[in-house]
Amino acid sequence: MNLFYQPLIPQGISYLDADESRHCVKVLRHTVGDTLRITDGHGFFYDAVITKADDRQCTFRIAEKIAQPLRNFTVHIAISPTKNADRIEWFVEKAVEFGVDTISIVECENTERTYLKKERLEKVAISAMKQSLKATLPRIEGLLPFQDILGSNATQKFIAYVDQQNPDHLKNMATAGKDYVVLIGPEGDFSLDELNAALQNGFKKVSLGPSRLRTETAGLAACHILNLINN
Amino acid sequence: MNLFYQPLIPQGISYLDADESRHCVKVLRHTVGDTLRITDGHGFFYDAVITKADDRQCTFRIAEKIAQPLRNFTVHIAISPTKNADRIEWFVEKAVEFGVDTISIVECENTERTYLKKERLEKVAISAMKQSLKATLPRIEGLLPFQDILGSNATQKFIAYVDQQNPDHLKNMATAGKDYVVLIGPEGDFSLDELNAALQNGFKKVSLGPSRLRTETAGLAACHILNLINN
Repeated sequence: MNLFYQPLIPQGISYLDADESRHCVKVLRHTVGDTLRITDGHGFFYDAVITKADDRQCTFRIAEKIAQPLRNFTVHIAISPTKNADRIEWFVEKAVEFGVDTISIVECENTERTYLKKERLEKVAISAMKQSLKATLPRIEGLLPFQDILGSNATQKFIAYVDQQNPDHLKNMATAGKDYVVLIGPEGDFSLDELNAALQNGFKKVSLGPSRLRTETAGLAACHILNLINN
Repeated sequence: MNLFYQPLIPQGISYLDADESRHCVKVLRHTVGDTLRITDGHGFFYDAVITKADDRQCTFRIAEKIAQPLRNFTVHIAISPTKNADRIEWFVEKAVEFGVDTISIVECENTERTYLKKERLEKVAISAMKQSLKATLPRIEGLLPFQDILGSNATQKFIAYVDQQNPDHLKNMATAGKDYVVLIGPEGDFSLDELNAALQNGFKKVSLGPSRLRTETAGLAACHILNLINN
């Protein structure tokens, strides 16, 4: 089953963009009268019938609009960019598969790489949304300064940080049906100033388990755990 | 902190291979008298003192042998290769970070790609073991025929398969302290014959959650869930 993407359906646009049109008409050989499943990335699926099978601008008529079931929780992962850009792209793809609402790429004191291909991350998120048949495209923001996350109005705020005081595991600290934000640090971890600033702003220290995880793996572990708690 | 790897320490070898020697002496500039942390990949760490800082064969004297704490459970993921080889390599890296004992690459009826770079997967596993400071290198086997997994003597055997009968979630079906094997199918899923053969051999159907996951993501989800249940 293929899911197509047209974010402007709510604004009345009823055709696929060039890439999607080519894939739909040239690759999948859809023709006039075929029914497509399209999402606007804003929470809705559409069953649409092709009215013009143009491989540059495939037009359609919407037959039915279907709301994706709402979740009673939201997941926001605020994560440092990785030295290797592939790793953060991989994180975005997998977080979308598990379910994520917002991804903030955050510059920390020990972040080694600050250059960010945001359009590339958005492309990865769109293709993961389509592949996992979701109707909501997560918001990707960044590069943000660390301080911008501290004001988050999430109902449960966590910072992944392991020290002598052995913080509790995220799986035990998070409760179902909340709005979560989790801060994930760079290879060099958060600075003590950043940790203290987070604690002063209502973030709780959490562990993600006994293994030493890479930045992108820690981000995915947090995203997966929060989805597991709610499903 | 750097962890070096020499699998032949139990056989009396007391030098690093060429790659590890170059990294230790040329890149990290270690010299005679420096202490290294080395693993044999068989469950032991060694604190070793450099006796000859040769960048082709760095020799050492073992000062202390430390056993990695044993886990009271084992995780075996039996997974179909993915069309894109990077995806299964990525799975191996992340599974090692979370903790896995055996990875079997299994050819299923709907497996599209059967060519496998096993040495590449072993390299990925070694580097992930070192990076996550573990002392046990998981066993990687394959390409195996599907039938070879059915005889597994694991104490809890699962097959990831979602159908109308909505199987229970792995997080509720698995109990702590067991030896687990989980079968993860290809993009085209298991055939009904494969599913029935697994059920007849004591495998239980499980879900990994509401999202449609790629093969490698499903494998990692299963590995992460089994670690979460035990930690």
